[in-house]
Amino acid sequence: MAYSDLHEHLKTLEARGLLRRVTQPINKDTEMHPLVRWQYRGGIPEEERKAWLFENVTDARGRQYKMPVVVGTLAGTKEIYYLGMGCETIEQVEAKWDRALAQPIPPVCVERAACQEEVHTGDELKQDGFGMDEFPVPISTPGFDNAPYTTCSHWISKDPETGVQNVGNYRGQLKTRARVGVFPSGLGQDIYIHWKKMQAQGKALPAALVIGAPPAVSYAAVQKVPYGMDELAVAGGLVGEPIRVVKCKTVDLVVPAEAEIVIEGYISTEFIEPEGPFGESHGYMHPRQLNPFMDVTAITHRRDAVYVSWISQVTPSESSVIKKTGYELMFLRHLRDECRIKSVLRVEMHEPLTNLRKLIIIQMRRPSEAEVWRALHAAASFHPGVGKIVVAVDEDIDPANEAAVFWAMCYRMKPHRDVQIVLGMEKGHAPPFHYKDREEGTDVVSYHLPADDSGMLCNAIQKEPFPPISLPKREYMEHARELWEELGLPKLKPEMPWYGYSLGQWDDELDEEANLAVQGRYYETGEKLATQRVKAK
Amino acid sequence: MAYSDLHEHLKTLEARGLLRRVTQPINKDTEMHPLVRWQYRGGIPEEERKAWLFENVTDARGRQYKMPVVVGTLAGTKEIYYLGMGCETIEQVEAKWDRALAQPIPPVCVERAACQEEVHTGDELKQDGFGMDEFPVPISTPGFDNAPYTTCSHWISKDPETGVQNVGNYRGQLKTRARVGVFPSGLGQDIYIHWKKMQAQGKALPAALVIGAPPAVSYAAVQKVPYGMDELAVAGGLVGEPIRVVKCKTVDLVVPAEAEIVIEGYISTEFIEPEGPFGESHGYMHPRQLNPFMDVTAITHRRDAVYVSWISQVTPSESSVIKKTGYELMFLRHLRDECRIKSVLRVEMHEPLTNLRKLIIIQMRRPSEAEVWRALHAAASFHPGVGKIVVAVDEDIDPANEAAVFWAMCYRMKPHRDVQIVLGMEKGHAPPFHYKDREEGTDVVSYHLPADDSGMLCNAIQKEPFPPISLPKREYMEHARELWEELGLPKLKPEMPWYGYSLGQWDDELDEEANLAVQGRYYETGEKLATQRVKAK
Repeated sequence: MAYSDLHEHLKTLEARGLLRRVTQPINKDTEMHPLVRWQYRGGIPEEERKAWLFENVTDARGRQYKMPVVVGTLAGTKEIYYLGMGCETIEQVEAKWDRALAQPIPPVCVERAACQEEVHTGDELKQDGFGMDEFPVPISTPGFDNAPYTTCSHWISKDPETGVQNVGNYRGQLKTRARVGVFPSGLGQDIYIHWKKMQAQGKALPAALVIGAPPAVSYAAVQKVPYGMDELAVAGGLVGEPIRVVKCKTVDLVVPAEAEIVIEGYISTEFIEPEGPFGESHGYMHPRQLNPFMDVTAITHRRDAVYVSWISQVTPSESSVIKKTGYELMFLRHLRDECRIKSVLRVEMHEPLTNLRKLIIIQMRRPSEAEVWRALHAAASFHPGVGKIVVAVDEDIDPANEAAVFWAMCYRMKPHRDVQIVLGMEKGHAPPFHYKDREEGTDVVSYHLPADDSGMLCNAIQKEPFPPISLPKREYMEHARELWEELGLPKLKPEMPWYGYSLGQWDDELDEEANLAVQGRYYETGEKLATQRVKAK
Repeated sequence: MAYSDLHEHLKTLEARGLLRRVTQPINKDTEMHPLVRWQYRGGIPEEERKAWLFENVTDARGRQYKMPVVVGTLAGTKEIYYLGMGCETIEQVEAKWDRALAQPIPPVCVERAACQEEVHTGDELKQDGFGMDEFPVPISTPGFDNAPYTTCSHWISKDPETGVQNVGNYRGQLKTRARVGVFPSGLGQDIYIHWKKMQAQGKALPAALVIGAPPAVSYAAVQKVPYGMDELAVAGGLVGEPIRVVKCKTVDLVVPAEAEIVIEGYISTEFIEPEGPFGESHGYMHPRQLNPFMDVTAITHRRDAVYVSWISQVTPSESSVIKKTGYELMFLRHLRDECRIKSVLRVEMHEPLTNLRKLIIIQMRRPSEAEVWRALHAAASFHPGVGKIVVAVDEDIDPANEAAVFWAMCYRMKPHRDVQIVLGMEKGHAPPFHYKDREEGTDVVSYHLPADDSGMLCNAIQKEPFPPISLPKREYMEHARELWEELGLPKLKPEMPWYGYSLGQWDDELDEEANLAVQGRYYETGEKLATQRVKAK
């Protein structure tokens, strides 16, 4: 097998110094996620963030779990994500995604699989210490969440007509030892299509909830791919060979052979139940809604299973890092390749806090004005609820730097000409919610968002020649950097702009004067300027 | 004397570890400002930034200067600015400003002054090594600036009718040893009013250019105060006693007795000359324009004079830090006290890059909708060219955190209802410039900006109840912080939001479920929810 399973990936992280082992007892219900949260809300720079391995997990009932919990191991930082993809750079990651989406490789079925080293079925699932009791599922948002929820939580189901499987990542609420709530987060998800088709046949939907898998499977599970494309085949494309899968014990589905944990069962299509609230990635508590649930028929897992949890609340978080690169690439391909707007250089799905979906920055090289508007409208209309504020910036603006984006908006935009409001949007993955409306049908099944929100498109592209950025020319800044280092001063991480460059409004006379100045010959310029005096009015 | 002069202030900085001495030779024309620039564009966190003292200054002509140069000593960081104000906290600074503006104290005249320990007049000023040659004036933007410019550069002039002096900080271009260009940066400055009044009398305007002064004088020089209020009296109000002043040698003006350097002279009101380009605080090269100039009649200075230079290009910079607190306080007083919008809590004049003027964030506590709009319009109309994008945010949004501001804009704003475009603005202190238009009169004297720009007002205030922020409740985060510290992990600097809190949409049932969950009793909730099943549609 040429691709890593999670255990090999953890070894890689540890060898790189990117895994933090916690040996002291940690309560999964009250301590674990708050502790890791500080890594993202405590001003800890990216390079000091790590993945976490909790070796001694307890809970609010005083239980001790044999199984360790890992958090942040798939995308705790960009570097961790790159390593999980088997890459060192963002360019390599993008190349792998390009290949995977263009050339998916279907999975291959094996007979014996690690994920079925232990198998539990029937009444055993409802006994104390069995069923979902086996797993140290942490509470993500203690004080607000009403249960532990699975978060690295890949739901596999199948289109009953085509037989094509789908893998999607949706939270799972622990309701009892043998019942798990599922929140397919809106009507657009593939599993909902499967659910509706089975409902039409009067049958429950067979499903498998996979927790922990070879990293490539997890990365594919959160990527948005066209309906009918099997994410396991995309994962195969990512690793360049078929993902090994095994047949489930009680449902007609296949799951990754090296998965950590598999929960098999049937999702009722007859009834729905209250589910939530759960602290979601949009930064607010997602409200209680009526949602499907699964009655568990089998649980299988590796003997050395590791429970994998993601943080997916206020960004930055693991769930945002894991999606960011894929989303950005998808938008870039859409704008640049499908809409053929060749001036698009880069698409930044912004976080922190805004959660990738709401603020999009499009970096462009010398676009025509109409191209700018086409790019802005195309970005705002590509996905529902994505692209509420979209800003086009020039090549010299770092789209990941909010201050630089505001700078472009302030100096390169006249709002009455360069801002357009787009009506008819829905609010998407965002509050406010009106959970009390559930009596009136505001739930996943009869959930129709009104189009009463709007978007704002900002053309912050430079429209006419500007004078140079008022920083020393590059050669002086580079020389000064050597001086800085000679002086033994703190390590520099240059931020754009860090040197001056022309934006079209400069000429030979000014250039010559600047050259005289750095030679100490500025009085010559002063004498010249005196000859250009005019009468003051 | 109860207030510090610059030399005492430098000792305070050094004692606090906030002064970086550079003993190796540094070229003032090519090396000095680029080196300090890295402190602001090199990813160096605020707490590692310092003031700089260059003890061995050379120039492009190979000269060595006896006089040292300091950069960043008045506002290289907020802490340095607080110390210069004789304060430890922002609250103390604000209290001093409040007192100074309410109770200015006129200066007191003395006979003998340190700033006149050396006096040079007449032809001597034009000899090699004299006149402006005495001073190691650095080039701010090597490669673009056409000369060294004075930057900590306080111009003193007097209203010929009222006799009231004004101190304003405007750059001074070294044109010859005895001629300095002045850029009063727009028609609104007080010195321009003096200049027009003297022009009407057919006389030149007497002026004194003060470089380096007791810190309080410098802080007052950059503060915007009403016309006719003497900044030296404001400085007196800041320090709680009269500023000591002395009569100039060749012009009828008084200057701070402890100033480092004073350049006396007459500004022609008959002629204007090309001046600039110079790298300005708006982040672009300010173009050449026709501007006044001063013929020098005397130079006086302390025997131990230190040349003071500010960095005032791309923000963050010393020139932005030195203005920020005063500007914010002025806007807060305007909105909260003069316009009586009591819900205004704080005004953030944003930088970096946007340069304080263009982006304003107003933090408000539970405002009515009309109050929000009144605050937004009042902020945008208070000063010309200030407040192009103005955003109102709630109390829980950190207005200094751009990501948080974007977060509020994305989730608490429907642009079609909550954004207003304001027509009829001028572009203010910003490009584009059309310096080639100078033949057509685009200069300081006949300079009229068209009102063809616009502003954008954003009401990002929460309009209806939201569910809680999806982070663990404060008690769990605080406990986890203790765990974090026990584990010896990197030092935390919490960023808002770092815990969850309700925004109005939460109820007792959900609270009870969350309490059960952290006790490990979540299956009870699961059983309850099963009783609330409904038929799926």
